[in-house]
Amino acid sequence: MSFAALPDIPYYAVIFAARRTEGDKGYADMADQMEELAATMPGYLGFESARSANGFGLAISYWESEQAIANWKHQADHQQAREIGRAQWYEHYTVRVAKVERSYSMKTNDQG
Amino acid sequence: MSFAALPDIPYYAVIFAARRTEGDKGYADMADQMEELAATMPGYLGFESARSANGFGLAISYWESEQAIANWKHQADHQQAREIGRAQWYEHYTVRVAKVERSYSMKTNDQG
Repeated sequence: MSFAALPDIPYYAVIFAARRTEGDKGYADMADQMEELAATMPGYLGFESARSANGFGLAISYWESEQAIANWKHQADHQQAREIGRAQWYEHYTVRVAKVERSYSMKTNDQG
Repeated sequence: MSFAALPDIPYYAVIFAARRTEGDKGYADMADQMEELAATMPGYLGFESARSANGFGLAISYWESEQAIANWKHQADHQQAREIGRAQWYEHYTVRVAKVERSYSMKTNDQG
């Protein structure tokens, strides 16, 4: 559950970079809930995230269209989570919306 | 040195998602070298990365233009590093090139 699929281009990426505040404060549970909820939204294509030990993390969600991104942004439970995020979970974040224009992948067959 | 600046749009993001093989095998030193080298390239705008304890990582470099991305892709030392990466460091990776169309940020003043 790490790599998102590579859909037909073009599609959209929402790149979220964030530094967390200290302590969990309900973050992990809510992050799981939001990841599940996002996957039920029309136009959702996938999600990837990684967080380093120093608290800096990247999370990227992939969407079919700008409209799908707007729908998710305004989904009521997600709006509430974003408010808590701004107030409690994040010290600093940036959001970038980008149109994916090409992609490729490499996977080894020999895992040895 | 975590957040990249938010330049004037539009600009480009190269989103690299990867799962590492086990062991360092010279990876960390080369990653540092490549990060420094990329920053000297024309059109370079910034770099962000995070790696989770499970070995899945995201690295995003930002560039002024498609031409800047192509120049970096074909830079000789970088080409050599990419070959080693395919052969030794990565079990699986995906690359997406995306045009950043909008962005915003939040930063708390009160760190308490």
